[in-house]
Amino acid sequence: MSERPAIILDCDPGHDDALALAVAARFTELVGVTTVSGNVGIESTTRNARVVLDLVAPEVDVHRGAARPLIVEPFFAEYVHGESGLDGADLPAPSRAPASDDAVAYLIETCRRREGLWLVPTGPLTNIALALRQAPDLAERIAGISLMGGGSFGNTTAAAEFNFFCDPHAAAIVMDYGGPLIMAGLDVTHRFQATPPRIERLRALPGRVPQLFAELLTFFSGTYVSRHDVMGGAAMHDVCAVLAITHPELFTADERHVAVETDGAITRGMSLIDERRLIDRPASNTRVLRTIDADAAFELLVESMPTA
Amino acid sequence: MSERPAIILDCDPGHDDALALAVAARFTELVGVTTVSGNVGIESTTRNARVVLDLVAPEVDVHRGAARPLIVEPFFAEYVHGESGLDGADLPAPSRAPASDDAVAYLIETCRRREGLWLVPTGPLTNIALALRQAPDLAERIAGISLMGGGSFGNTTAAAEFNFFCDPHAAAIVMDYGGPLIMAGLDVTHRFQATPPRIERLRALPGRVPQLFAELLTFFSGTYVSRHDVMGGAAMHDVCAVLAITHPELFTADERHVAVETDGAITRGMSLIDERRLIDRPASNTRVLRTIDADAAFELLVESMPTA
Amino acid sequence: MSERPAIILDCDPGHDDALALAVAARFTELVGVTTVSGNVGIESTTRNARVVLDLVAPEVDVHRGAARPLIVEPFFAEYVHGESGLDGADLPAPSRAPASDDAVAYLIETCRRREGLWLVPTGPLTNIALALRQAPDLAERIAGISLMGGGSFGNTTAAAEFNFFCDPHAAAIVMDYGGPLIMAGLDVTHRFQATPPRIERLRALPGRVPQLFAELLTFFSGTYVSRHDVMGGAAMHDVCAVLAITHPELFTADERHVAVETDGAITRGMSLIDERRLIDRPASNTRVLRTIDADAAFELLVESMPTA
Amino acid sequence: MSERPAIILDCDPGHDDALALAVAARFTELVGVTTVSGNVGIESTTRNARVVLDLVAPEVDVHRGAARPLIVEPFFAEYVHGESGLDGADLPAPSRAPASDDAVAYLIETCRRREGLWLVPTGPLTNIALALRQAPDLAERIAGISLMGGGSFGNTTAAAEFNFFCDPHAAAIVMDYGGPLIMAGLDVTHRFQATPPRIERLRALPGRVPQLFAELLTFFSGTYVSRHDVMGGAAMHDVCAVLAITHPELFTADERHVAVETDGAITRGMSLIDERRLIDRPASNTRVLRTIDADAAFELLVESMPTA
Repeated sequence: MSERPAIILDCDPGHDDALALAVAARFTELVGVTTVSGNVGIESTTRNARVVLDLVAPEVDVHRGAARPLIVEPFFAEYVHGESGLDGADLPAPSRAPASDDAVAYLIETCRRREGLWLVPTGPLTNIALALRQAPDLAERIAGISLMGGGSFGNTTAAAEFNFFCDPHAAAIVMDYGGPLIMAGLDVTHRFQATPPRIERLRALPGRVPQLFAELLTFFSGTYVSRHDVMGGAAMHDVCAVLAITHPELFTADERHVAVETDGAITRGMSLIDERRLIDRPASNTRVLRTIDADAAFELLVESMPTA
Repeated sequence: MSERPAIILDCDPGHDDALALAVAARFTELVGVTTVSGNVGIESTTRNARVVLDLVAPEVDVHRGAARPLIVEPFFAEYVHGESGLDGADLPAPSRAPASDDAVAYLIETCRRREGLWLVPTGPLTNIALALRQAPDLAERIAGISLMGGGSFGNTTAAAEFNFFCDPHAAAIVMDYGGPLIMAGLDVTHRFQATPPRIERLRALPGRVPQLFAELLTFFSGTYVSRHDVMGGAAMHDVCAVLAITHPELFTADERHVAVETDGAITRGMSLIDERRLIDRPASNTRVLRTIDADAAFELLVESMPTA
Repeated sequence: MSERPAIILDCDPGHDDALALAVAARFTELVGVTTVSGNVGIESTTRNARVVLDLVAPEVDVHRGAARPLIVEPFFAEYVHGESGLDGADLPAPSRAPASDDAVAYLIETCRRREGLWLVPTGPLTNIALALRQAPDLAERIAGISLMGGGSFGNTTAAAEFNFFCDPHAAAIVMDYGGPLIMAGLDVTHRFQATPPRIERLRALPGRVPQLFAELLTFFSGTYVSRHDVMGGAAMHDVCAVLAITHPELFTADERHVAVETDGAITRGMSLIDERRLIDRPASNTRVLRTIDADAAFELLVESMPTA
Repeated sequence: MSERPAIILDCDPGHDDALALAVAARFTELVGVTTVSGNVGIESTTRNARVVLDLVAPEVDVHRGAARPLIVEPFFAEYVHGESGLDGADLPAPSRAPASDDAVAYLIETCRRREGLWLVPTGPLTNIALALRQAPDLAERIAGISLMGGGSFGNTTAAAEFNFFCDPHAAAIVMDYGGPLIMAGLDVTHRFQATPPRIERLRALPGRVPQLFAELLTFFSGTYVSRHDVMGGAAMHDVCAVLAITHPELFTADERHVAVETDGAITRGMSLIDERRLIDRPASNTRVLRTIDADAAFELLVESMPTA
């Protein structure tokens, strides 16, 4: 399918990253996958990426990336994703090792060899920021960046979403990179929840892979529901960043100027969306996703499940 | 009218402070007025407070307060209120000088002499913060604080409302003071606009004072409309902080934990409202006003106009 | 003795504050004493001030001041001064209660009633900062401020001295107040140590009070020596701030511009002394003490001991 | 000369960088040169590096590096080095273009191909920080880092030296990298000045190259002397970082823990040297140079001048 956008997915699986990999395998030309420290450490996210790709796109290579944020100390989310980063299912061992240990070099070389790729980061933005700073020409070589992160409210703190909180300096570099930029923040991702009926829908599909994903989502939703008083299921954040380029018609969005706070005492990692309606205001640099047609989006997730 | 709440209004007139003084004169027992540097410098805000009180409550004394913020450098809003802070009408000279130059001492002494007062700050929170730090016993002596400031978005910067931006450290002290606290932030105050029909409503009232207020609002709305692409008139911010205690039924509100960022590179003075629905979340410290019945509120403003 | 400078000592005893009170009682006209939260909490520092004054100047009143810093959370130094703030000697109970609970009002009123006083703060600068912000006219009414704090290196952190670290915002306000300012920072105070021979010198004096001071210094030096690899005894910091105005000939000093960092990740509370020799440099605002004739200074301390 | 240390010099010429290149060409095995934005923009520093190498080591390649700091906005020093970064002499055009535009990739590949190299950064630390974050294995592959930057006082601000000020986040990454680290900060570099007699010494040497260097130093010292009230000539900063590994006997030094402030309001880019003599103190991570035998060092500079 020649119109499928070609992407590199930069991720830290993580349950919703796993879903994003499945959807990317189905609806994009998945050129490669890079990993980053985030939900869990780099060894685990890299292993998990390989394990998930073995299920949904075994031919795609994984390149291991940053083991820590640019400046701030590492911060993980085992309280959401479990010790392994993919708790909840009995997953097979990875079929092979990463293709390289240098995700940043891979990103730079690949984007230079082939123009027009989309970068789809679903974890902390360390790899992407390092690539952009080392090779500023990438900004003009890529089609754009569609990332999961930020939003008008926080989850890790009252101000900040997890990915931006974990590496605020990297987030600031990426948000300011100057090219096309889509932000799938919490505003939209919290509207795409793994509710019990949706999990059941997956479980009812034939084959082993949908079962594994249903088990993963059962665990993932469990940690969400146990920690919040009004969640019907885990937010399937990372899927939104992929669908935003493959199925943009599912979303509403606004063009806004967004900046990232790197230094605040209580706002570190916050994405500051300028909502002022000043006539003399900063130029928009981001397409801020606001809503998603969650039922339609979930059908695409179902469609992306290998059922052989 | 014995049920009227007794208040001290701490203000930096400012057009909407002038309206707040009128409404306070009508619906509260206005024990005293203190002034603070804010929209314009302390000489101007003190003079303006006296001028407006001469129109709406000539017997009430004015006490001059802080000439600058606690820590950060002064920042003014002549671009909104004009050079004088009350541009737009030909106002008479003040009838007399301030009763004192020490608003903080006045606040402390008055709150100690008479328990159960409401403090209603409608400017930067410098005076209130100084009083609370010097006399921590005030926190238990007052009925509460109903302030204009903050909100879930900014006006002076993308993150911060003017009063909180001007003295973020004072705002942080006040938001953390520990007693009953109502925040009339931009969410609610932007819903109470001086639209042309409302200004005409004032102008049609008999007597000189409503004319002056109509002229003030014409100027004030002019600066708003010229700077924004979607405002129907100036936001009559400060009135909300008064009405929130005299007519609470006009408002919807949520109990939330709110903190103030003092240090951020781009978020200084932001009021961070914790909207997370975590089961294990910080205790609420603020009644955050969300909506106002603007028509009913404006009728109260009309009713507060001296028409003799 | 009419040439003795009239001072108000603002302190947080603390062992070296106790010495400073003794020296002030002997060589200044000690108009009053105010207390502040610092080495230990405000209840303890106020009690300790009264106890020490009972020994060296029983007629002088104590006024209780700030129970916490302006903005940052309280931080104490029991690891240096013991639980009571004056561990090491069996001190009598205080003879009477504080004269007031409002040190800031006392400072303002006294400085207005009598011009030309020196303020000598030897603890965190919370009271002085509150007084200067509430009553900016004080800056021109006082003779100056001679404070213990800051320096070109830190003790509480690598960057910051204890008093400035505890209330960096107050320190910033005071260092910027605009009048005569002497900074007795760690550069000079570390040169005035309670060595064993000096402690023995006190112990050999007749009377009960020198014994008590010798016991206090034995404890105080003990905590210093046990924590450092090169201290010959505790630094008798606070005495320097008093002697700097009574016996300036004991010191060498430089005129410098000094500012206080309030926000740094690792430099909070640092006093930044501008040592650049730029032709176009910020104007000096501080007399920075560099060296002390420690032996001569100690003789003055000996001379200040009541020996009756 | 097989014992010469093998180095990569990472620089932003800049007059003193030019001297450092000459000394490195004479006393090290100069494996390669990378450039960074700093004293002037990356186009100029790269051109200047090539021009200087043509004079002192024409066979060595230049690799162009970072065009801007990691996070903060670019800041230049034309007020010291002139528009070109090497004002003062009529220098020939460069003989050829940079060998690559990717200094970071060059650093990583070279350090992986050949273990035991010294990195000698004499500009902002952007390239080195990017390399260390992308390839953390470098920390164990290199012999160490000897850098010009930091010190116990500042030049660009009262707190910060130019290189650390320009990219404080990169400086923080490098100071924390974990391997052998020598800091040639302002304490030592200000002791190595291009005094008039030293400049004359160069001018008296035979050949064209010493003349050019004498002219460069005349300009460089001129900007220093005109801006300071006590400098006898420009500080030949960058030379110290080279000599520290080739002639360590010229220096005195202390082992200290050094950290970099990235966030301070007035201390951004400050190198905080922990001078506390606490028994329980942070482990040393830096060899802090304190003094230099300036006359001996200058003889080495003379010796490094090509006189053909």
